[in-house]
Amino acid sequence: MNTFGHLFKLTSFGESHGKGIGGIIDGCPAGINLDLDFIQNELDRRKPGQSKITTQRKESDTVDFLSGVFEGKTQGTPIGFAIWNKDQHSKDYDSLKDVYRPSHADYTYAKKYGSRDHRGGGRSSARETIARVVAGAIAKLILKQIGVSINAFVYRVGNIQVNKTYPELDLNKIDSNIVRCPEEGTAEQMIKRIEEAGRNHDTVGGVIQCVIQGVPIGLGEPVFNKLHADLGHAMLGINAVKGFEYGSGFEGTKLSGSEHNDVFIKTKDGVRTKTNHSGGVQGGISNGEDIYFNVAFKPIATLLKEQETINKNEEQTIINPKGRHDPCVLPRAVPIVEAMAAMVIVDHYLLNKVNRI
Amino acid sequence: MNTFGHLFKLTSFGESHGKGIGGIIDGCPAGINLDLDFIQNELDRRKPGQSKITTQRKESDTVDFLSGVFEGKTQGTPIGFAIWNKDQHSKDYDSLKDVYRPSHADYTYAKKYGSRDHRGGGRSSARETIARVVAGAIAKLILKQIGVSINAFVYRVGNIQVNKTYPELDLNKIDSNIVRCPEEGTAEQMIKRIEEAGRNHDTVGGVIQCVIQGVPIGLGEPVFNKLHADLGHAMLGINAVKGFEYGSGFEGTKLSGSEHNDVFIKTKDGVRTKTNHSGGVQGGISNGEDIYFNVAFKPIATLLKEQETINKNEEQTIINPKGRHDPCVLPRAVPIVEAMAAMVIVDHYLLNKVNRI
Amino acid sequence: MNTFGHLFKLTSFGESHGKGIGGIIDGCPAGINLDLDFIQNELDRRKPGQSKITTQRKESDTVDFLSGVFEGKTQGTPIGFAIWNKDQHSKDYDSLKDVYRPSHADYTYAKKYGSRDHRGGGRSSARETIARVVAGAIAKLILKQIGVSINAFVYRVGNIQVNKTYPELDLNKIDSNIVRCPEEGTAEQMIKRIEEAGRNHDTVGGVIQCVIQGVPIGLGEPVFNKLHADLGHAMLGINAVKGFEYGSGFEGTKLSGSEHNDVFIKTKDGVRTKTNHSGGVQGGISNGEDIYFNVAFKPIATLLKEQETINKNEEQTIINPKGRHDPCVLPRAVPIVEAMAAMVIVDHYLLNKVNRI
Amino acid sequence: MNTFGHLFKLTSFGESHGKGIGGIIDGCPAGINLDLDFIQNELDRRKPGQSKITTQRKESDTVDFLSGVFEGKTQGTPIGFAIWNKDQHSKDYDSLKDVYRPSHADYTYAKKYGSRDHRGGGRSSARETIARVVAGAIAKLILKQIGVSINAFVYRVGNIQVNKTYPELDLNKIDSNIVRCPEEGTAEQMIKRIEEAGRNHDTVGGVIQCVIQGVPIGLGEPVFNKLHADLGHAMLGINAVKGFEYGSGFEGTKLSGSEHNDVFIKTKDGVRTKTNHSGGVQGGISNGEDIYFNVAFKPIATLLKEQETINKNEEQTIINPKGRHDPCVLPRAVPIVEAMAAMVIVDHYLLNKVNRI
Repeated sequence: MNTFGHLFKLTSFGESHGKGIGGIIDGCPAGINLDLDFIQNELDRRKPGQSKITTQRKESDTVDFLSGVFEGKTQGTPIGFAIWNKDQHSKDYDSLKDVYRPSHADYTYAKKYGSRDHRGGGRSSARETIARVVAGAIAKLILKQIGVSINAFVYRVGNIQVNKTYPELDLNKIDSNIVRCPEEGTAEQMIKRIEEAGRNHDTVGGVIQCVIQGVPIGLGEPVFNKLHADLGHAMLGINAVKGFEYGSGFEGTKLSGSEHNDVFIKTKDGVRTKTNHSGGVQGGISNGEDIYFNVAFKPIATLLKEQETINKNEEQTIINPKGRHDPCVLPRAVPIVEAMAAMVIVDHYLLNKVNRI
Repeated sequence: MNTFGHLFKLTSFGESHGKGIGGIIDGCPAGINLDLDFIQNELDRRKPGQSKITTQRKESDTVDFLSGVFEGKTQGTPIGFAIWNKDQHSKDYDSLKDVYRPSHADYTYAKKYGSRDHRGGGRSSARETIARVVAGAIAKLILKQIGVSINAFVYRVGNIQVNKTYPELDLNKIDSNIVRCPEEGTAEQMIKRIEEAGRNHDTVGGVIQCVIQGVPIGLGEPVFNKLHADLGHAMLGINAVKGFEYGSGFEGTKLSGSEHNDVFIKTKDGVRTKTNHSGGVQGGISNGEDIYFNVAFKPIATLLKEQETINKNEEQTIINPKGRHDPCVLPRAVPIVEAMAAMVIVDHYLLNKVNRI
Repeated sequence: MNTFGHLFKLTSFGESHGKGIGGIIDGCPAGINLDLDFIQNELDRRKPGQSKITTQRKESDTVDFLSGVFEGKTQGTPIGFAIWNKDQHSKDYDSLKDVYRPSHADYTYAKKYGSRDHRGGGRSSARETIARVVAGAIAKLILKQIGVSINAFVYRVGNIQVNKTYPELDLNKIDSNIVRCPEEGTAEQMIKRIEEAGRNHDTVGGVIQCVIQGVPIGLGEPVFNKLHADLGHAMLGINAVKGFEYGSGFEGTKLSGSEHNDVFIKTKDGVRTKTNHSGGVQGGISNGEDIYFNVAFKPIATLLKEQETINKNEEQTIINPKGRHDPCVLPRAVPIVEAMAAMVIVDHYLLNKVNRI
Repeated sequence: MNTFGHLFKLTSFGESHGKGIGGIIDGCPAGINLDLDFIQNELDRRKPGQSKITTQRKESDTVDFLSGVFEGKTQGTPIGFAIWNKDQHSKDYDSLKDVYRPSHADYTYAKKYGSRDHRGGGRSSARETIARVVAGAIAKLILKQIGVSINAFVYRVGNIQVNKTYPELDLNKIDSNIVRCPEEGTAEQMIKRIEEAGRNHDTVGGVIQCVIQGVPIGLGEPVFNKLHADLGHAMLGINAVKGFEYGSGFEGTKLSGSEHNDVFIKTKDGVRTKTNHSGGVQGGISNGEDIYFNVAFKPIATLLKEQETINKNEEQTIINPKGRHDPCVLPRAVPIVEAMAAMVIVDHYLLNKVNRI
């Protein structure tokens, strides 16, 4: 169950404090130029220690490609890769060996598997997502060739939310600040909010919005693998995600059908819709309009303060975690959201190729 | 892509106005008593014409089991089944043959496949979900044996929302009214809101909440098939669904980590959590607490009134659909949500059996 | 586990004496003309009672398409179908209810599932293969469009074997006799051999050879789904099959490499090989030469004579089956071999489409 | 398509002259003691340079486990691993860059993917099977716990064949000689035959027989994943394999049903069969008797002598490969056959666990 995708597939491995995180990308078409700078840049956007509002762990997170590439191009064969772990402080986790952090995966992993690698959260650590960013970066290289762009940004931190709609924002500005929010003033407030959480040894959640543009009409596989269902599945598989909505989402359910429907209009660029409550997907299939969706991230569970909990023997105890943790996962989750979205779109692009002979 | 599930699998077929809707349930364990009355009752909860607030189409929706059952018990072999279509008025759809309903699947199906069965929406019709209810009913029969119950109810219609939290409600009352909301006064308002929409030839959306109780600890497969990710995938595959959130959901992202964390406590019934913002799932794995989630349904797209649109030749035109349609999909979607949830839980119950030898 | 194929998929259902045999073909490309006469003809080649050397059960075996087809064309949606059972004599099997036929699936099914449908062999009956012939016929319709032909024939019955190699035979003559062997004199001897077996209330096995011509270069997915591996998997899943070999097969292993290698030559038709010990597949990928392989069928297990065995209580007993059985499965297995081969080739044709963007 | 297995899954990566060969084992149950000496011993049985009749390439082939193991035990999480390449002489392959070896995968890979890594055969090299041996070794560790043993041996080299049946042989003697044939005199002749081929710069094929003992009744999933079908699929995916037969195989098809049937008898050890033409599998399901099968290996294609062929521009040319190659693949293929068999049995053991709740 560590494989994602139908045709373009990532199988991932690795724990936070093991030898490394890695994976195999199977089903990547042959002949793609593997732009290593681009891939590394995506990893840099996710890496720890990148700014004052992220964890201060230092990892270079350099990808080591092990197979599937020859003379700079993908070969149609599986692409093995690893990112070697380097800056683990496993000692920091000694105190967590026999005790379960509230709202973390410690307890459920131990119960499910009968044991767990407690160092750095083991397999349940968000460090696992590094493999997704590598696969997503390759997916993005493919999407570039077919004219698809993907831009995610931090839409809300705690109660601080972007005011404009995404078409009113300049999505090129996402990476212009450390919180990855393209609305300047809001970004500053978000940064303050995260710093405040950090000072309080607390954490804060929020929402990431993602916009996919240039998707060809026809992607999505009814009935169980509607395009938005596979996107939602992808997002809900990211650590700390609590919800997914696309297009008009939860709010749109308050509208009447006559308000909500997206009327088709003929334009010089072809058929378009007047509004886009559908979020670019109708009947589970892309209609050529922008795809956009929101992903809810909870405040992460590891707090650097005392909390009640139980230990391995199911006795009541107090936990007081050490270590270097993010007070807010959202800025570093932006490239992860984009990566998962990119994989889904490439996967459905390939799936759609076999709908006709 | 018409198969759902990893081990307990439904493959479905059928169009709204074809011969019937049906499917094959593969991976159903042997030896399950097939309680036909229970299964039919689930279908009756979904069927059209059941009350004044649903479509007035009349379908008996009786399931015909074709294989996999012998002397009343499942045999471990695939369970084929069909529900034969009877009350189609295909003529009602003649006017839709060459024209695309706004926000419906007409346009995208036509573009994707090069043609479409326009009668009753063809494969994109929610009539397809009948196969899910059959498979879900069998999943529920399995869940009964392991002590799991699933109850969904209408939580919001338009702006009319349940006031209490689900633990304060009597979930046995869900089916005591036609809108399937266990809060009496709210139910009455919801019914009025739906009737109003019907009178206006308009439609109204809302939210269904689903509660799963008695789930054993340990279900869910990190990392890509977290229990909530598979639940979300299942829900987002239902027609008209726009969003999914579990536990504290989107609102919970406004809390700080110290507010949001569910502290473990030792009770005489074993380990429990003080609060349940996690919605019964931590690290993608069930922790024994109630699982609960919300599913957003848009107002359905087919309106019995004039709307601008385009036709097959991509010319601007006016559409004015006939036919018998639901003004609100939610009351009939309750058993569909439960069915999909039941399939996911059974599937993960089986998956978890192979985590140890 | 009742699904076959990666992209072009058949999920089948049904028991010998249940309501019928059927299935769902998922992943069939849109826009294929569904030639019903052709499909029925394939079923007729498989059906019982077609000649003096097959079982005298009479089944019309008419396929009933339930979905996925509109105005004579496939729609890209799942194609449900059923063949309704009509001529079952379940009474004939009463004596087999509590006793296990030697070398049949009775004992292992009962042990695996805890019970079994004994009527006509239930799910283990070769009647199940009828669903494969339907899906295979549709696959053949697709293959016609891309210039691929598939011809299987009876190569050996007991010790009576075709003398010529397939390029020396006229494959158009396969259906010119009831045993489906294109070498006339040999066919007559085979028929006599089968009649002799029938008279003795015994059965006889043999070998079917299959030739696939016109396959494009490049089909087959290294490393685990080599083209011949998927063909072998398909064949070994047919009832009574004991072995599979392709190209030079078992005999070829006696040659030295310098004798066995197929030298490449440039011809006016492009690159060809001088010999074809490779059987059209090199490194698991088609090379454009003819694909050919042999499939071994055991003498079927149900004999209309007394045999020692055990019963349900694991006591020693004597069995003396009644019913109408084939003395030799091979003539009716020819279309089944072709059907499975056709599905594999279409599946790999589609898989190969996504190796490049 | 680089994943093998349904629940116990190996996804492999790597080329002959890339950084290494590796894979991810997903679905391995938690709590298995990872006996590193045992695993290394399996690799040593496969490694090049182990005797005078194998290639003289020297590779230590030491496995590096990258994840999924903690305190010596599997964790239920994916097991990443790699075997780093060390002794590649890529220069030896320069002459093969633009020319296709007869009967090798060079031509088909180039045609399928548009390019190929020619060094050491790239992905098509049998060096890829090293990943299978690692996964198979872990599967064997699981099988030990449930009492299953797997022994493969060289049954025929060219025309030199074992005289006894496997029950008459001492399977503990398989590794007592370098050709891995438990019949001493025959082993000596086989060695001479291989040495002769080597002297002639030629190659020789043969047959491996594999015996699986102690398999529980009930493994195998009708209808498409019969136990022998999945075994056959596994074997046919090994490089150079041309055929598979189980139980009585091709020869058995010459018998009549009354000769071939395996009569059930009641013994003090429970139900057994008098004979075992079924090869331990009936109706696709294990019946508790020994499973045995034969695998045909062609003489490998790379000859250290001149042969006609074509080059990249499809011009006629002469090839004269250098490098260090095996004159006969069989002795080193014995652990590969066992490994694939072990994976299939573990996989079906897990699959069978979910046939009942």
